Amino acid sequence: MANFISRRQFTIQWGHCDPGGIVFNSRFFEFFDWGTWSLFEAALGVRPPDLFATFGIVGLPLVDAGARFIAPTRFGDVVEMTSQVSEFRRSSFDVAHQIIVRGDVAVEGRETRVWAARDSADSSRMKARTIPPEVTALFQVP
Amino acid sequence: MANFISRRQFTIQWGHCDPGGIVFNSRFFEFFDWGTWSLFEAALGVRPPDLFATFGIVGLPLVDAGARFIAPTRFGDVVEMTSQVSEFRRSSFDVAHQIIVRGDVAVEGRETRVWAARDSADSSRMKARTIPPEVTALFQVP
Amino acid sequence: MANFISRRQFTIQWGHCDPGGIVFNSRFFEFFDWGTWSLFEAALGVRPPDLFATFGIVGLPLVDAGARFIAPTRFGDVVEMTSQVSEFRRSSFDVAHQIIVRGDVAVEGRETRVWAARDSADSSRMKARTIPPEVTALFQVP
Amino acid sequence: MANFISRRQFTIQWGHCDPGGIVFNSRFFEFFDWGTWSLFEAALGVRPPDLFATFGIVGLPLVDAGARFIAPTRFGDVVEMTSQVSEFRRSSFDVAHQIIVRGDVAVEGRETRVWAARDSADSSRMKARTIPPEVTALFQVP
Repeated sequence: MANFISRRQFTIQWGHCDPGGIVFNSRFFEFFDWGTWSLFEAALGVRPPDLFATFGIVGLPLVDAGARFIAPTRFGDVVEMTSQVSEFRRSSFDVAHQIIVRGDVAVEGRETRVWAARDSADSSRMKARTIPPEVTALFQVP
Repeated sequence: MANFISRRQFTIQWGHCDPGGIVFNSRFFEFFDWGTWSLFEAALGVRPPDLFATFGIVGLPLVDAGARFIAPTRFGDVVEMTSQVSEFRRSSFDVAHQIIVRGDVAVEGRETRVWAARDSADSSRMKARTIPPEVTALFQVP
Repeated sequence: MANFISRRQFTIQWGHCDPGGIVFNSRFFEFFDWGTWSLFEAALGVRPPDLFATFGIVGLPLVDAGARFIAPTRFGDVVEMTSQVSEFRRSSFDVAHQIIVRGDVAVEGRETRVWAARDSADSSRMKARTIPPEVTALFQVP
Repeated sequence: MANFISRRQFTIQWGHCDPGGIVFNSRFFEFFDWGTWSLFEAALGVRPPDLFATFGIVGLPLVDAGARFIAPTRFGDVVEMTSQVSEFRRSSFDVAHQIIVRGDVAVEGRETRVWAARDSADSSRMKARTIPPEVTALFQVP
């Protein structure tokens, strides 16, 4: 069994880059967020805006994120981003992202997110819920 | 009578700038949005997140925006932004912004926004409402 | 003769949207900037980061930009952006953009840009240059 | 001896927030970047755009960044950001950031950066340099 991996290819834009001519770091965290939604869409077959209604959740709130910047990424670079769930726990999970430029990993990212529903005791709050096994099963490939 | 003018001073950050070393254009539209909320807070004495509940509206949706870029703005520049309502109409209004660097106008911006409440016939939609005269009065100074 | 039109299709991301659930206005100006680079790449056959060296310019600085917001654009919407040069003048030009959602124009954008080289009298400054006729010719289709 | 701490107070803007009504995660990495420049300005007494020329460096490239999201931060929240160098090594250092809302830490961030000069063997590349002791000394308070 292996992790389901989603892949996105895109081109670095002028507006992604800083005066040093490389992608400004916060942009990678935008890319990772997008990578996670894309991964869930690809694995579950549910469009991101429909995820909440389909699974009775209100979000996948981020509780931790990080990135390691290995090589610079520049305007016009065609990058491939891979995203996969590296670990599922009871109600949280880790997503691992890689930004690959010309065959080499330029940035490694990771996110920890929670499977969260509305708190029945206080509807303005979210509460972690057990991730359904039929969800986690779809992130495994034979 | 003159327009009430709100003023904000801030410093251009590294992440605001592009590989040309100047502020990337979309950032100015972020600044203008912030300028409008600041102006409403200053004129009405209501914190932005409380604006909706206080006046029974659901937003000030933007229907038109524009900017004229006169001089470059760079990392570390201390800028002053002035914002004022240049015209109130029945249910919409224009906001004029200026970004001033070292005493000169570097960017002129304008926004047209609508005073919008929830549509009673379809709660997923917004509907323009008449701007209360007690609101418009507060944007005039003797 | 007609204008050369470039088309991009992309999906609205979670991070593009604001608490009202619609795309935050400044994002459209990022899209337009990207649309212009894409248009130049498609028309001239030159990758954006090579544009400067190929044509002896240092940029296509923006002097004016605007947008008309006609309908809301939301998370998960698949949008088509069309970009074309609506007018070439001696050393500046206008780009017209449309953001189309489900067949309807949701946002119209326009940019005015300058064809700019380094100022030979002061290398820290840019100077408008005549746009070569072989460039403008490539933005026309029979 | 204690670490020199720089503090910034600012207000969360509408455009910082996502459809969940909370600050979109990538924005915190923009805040941290700004926090580091502010810290260096406060400790060294050098304006950020002058840092490079003053110390013969070309940047403080980020090699690692992370954040822990503890509590939601919302539109209109007045936040205090503290930034300090938590460790100096020979040519790299760690910066610790805290985002404090209503007296509680809402987000903890960390960055690892390099003190980098132009590589004399290849001017298109950067090379780590020993951080001068007169620099590190200024980040300590008695």
